[in-house]
Amino acid sequence: MNAGKSLVINGQALANGRTPLICVPLVGREEAEVLAEVAAAVAKGPDLLEWRVDFFAGLAETARVIALAQAIRRAAAGLPLIFTRRSTREGGEPIALSEAQVLELYLSVIAVDGADFYDYELSSPPADFQAVRAAVQGRGAQLLASYHNFQQTPSADELLGKFRAMADAGADVVKIAVMPQTAADVLTLLTATLAARQQLNVPVISMSMGPLGAVSRLVGAAFGSCVSFAVGAKASAPGQVPVADLQAVREILQRAAAI
Amino acid sequence: MNAGKSLVINGQALANGRTPLICVPLVGREEAEVLAEVAAAVAKGPDLLEWRVDFFAGLAETARVIALAQAIRRAAAGLPLIFTRRSTREGGEPIALSEAQVLELYLSVIAVDGADFYDYELSSPPADFQAVRAAVQGRGAQLLASYHNFQQTPSADELLGKFRAMADAGADVVKIAVMPQTAADVLTLLTATLAARQQLNVPVISMSMGPLGAVSRLVGAAFGSCVSFAVGAKASAPGQVPVADLQAVREILQRAAAI
Repeated sequence: MNAGKSLVINGQALANGRTPLICVPLVGREEAEVLAEVAAAVAKGPDLLEWRVDFFAGLAETARVIALAQAIRRAAAGLPLIFTRRSTREGGEPIALSEAQVLELYLSVIAVDGADFYDYELSSPPADFQAVRAAVQGRGAQLLASYHNFQQTPSADELLGKFRAMADAGADVVKIAVMPQTAADVLTLLTATLAARQQLNVPVISMSMGPLGAVSRLVGAAFGSCVSFAVGAKASAPGQVPVADLQAVREILQRAAAI
Repeated sequence: MNAGKSLVINGQALANGRTPLICVPLVGREEAEVLAEVAAAVAKGPDLLEWRVDFFAGLAETARVIALAQAIRRAAAGLPLIFTRRSTREGGEPIALSEAQVLELYLSVIAVDGADFYDYELSSPPADFQAVRAAVQGRGAQLLASYHNFQQTPSADELLGKFRAMADAGADVVKIAVMPQTAADVLTLLTATLAARQQLNVPVISMSMGPLGAVSRLVGAAFGSCVSFAVGAKASAPGQVPVADLQAVREILQRAAAI
């Protein structure tokens, strides 16, 4: 059901447009640890990888970051890579870099084609966001704008407003992750996802986090989310499920419903 | 998450309250066919069976219906049984009996404890519905009230009104099955299900039918539906999925979310 609304690289739909695409986050602190995660992830057959660079101990050394990005790509057997610094504001790890230094790091990684997608938060300073956007466009890569709320789930209208703001700011892909306090919040997230998928011209990614929200990671594709983040070596966000479970449910849903 | 809101027989929660309970419908035309379906179903490990008596060629012969109900129970290895005549109004098979004869058939089957649950449609004449209710109460069995719409999905408010009307009419269990025309309709059904589960004191069963709705059969339990109908020898309604698929998703959801 997501034809034309899933991730595309060089005009080619990832995994022939099958959804959800399964993404394994890499959360190691050292090079060896990250590369071991890549090998373990690749063996499970995901569709893409996300390097959560805020977990990386070498974050302040641009050359180390670039070298590791390139090593990940060599080890990733052709799997596309999302490069992500998650801020502490939105659930990421504490880091020593200033926002200006984070921007410089992104621009350096983009300049050497270190990844296919670059996650940048909608809550970043607009000028930084646009600088990343321009750099990404200059390299033929893609900007994945994101919004996270680890406390609660805003209303469907607010969530749709966030999705729209990200698309309006020039994002190539839009992502929202929010925490449910009730099962109704999970339906709110799915409702906003479906509306965004219908109203926007960019691929949509969403998840409701934690145990209550885990169901959204399993069946969000039926409501327009094109990527589900699986648990890798360890979870990078609450509620992530194993790659094999996502694969099993994807197969069952495809048999049942041709999503 | 459905503690206290799933099916109970003699004070005992079915399958220790685990949801969804998986129900296999029996749709054979002749005794031998129905009993072969029971054997095939039992081998798959469902939690209950539903005999769709409107498929049965011997429907007009009360003694044959009673004898087969009793044979199903003997063959069912202790699995509880739902006795269901689905009307053509609500997606059932054409039958030769008048509504008055259907009522008599129910009363005869109830009198010999032919089943644990008796499905009677909310759209039936209120006097008939109450007659079934009184008979069921007299035998310590349970009345499962149902509403089906094979054309469309009414609004969440209308669906909640149907659930409430069934509970107000004295149903022990309430069930709604509706057809989605869009993915949004699936969310509407889940929203109404969750509200009914929160507001009513009876177990709730729901499903969105067809390929679009199949996702609701897989994860409806996360939003309050305590039973999912699997495909048996053949589907009794569109979108039903195999027992093994329901079992697999139930296990994955339980690991991920402790539903």
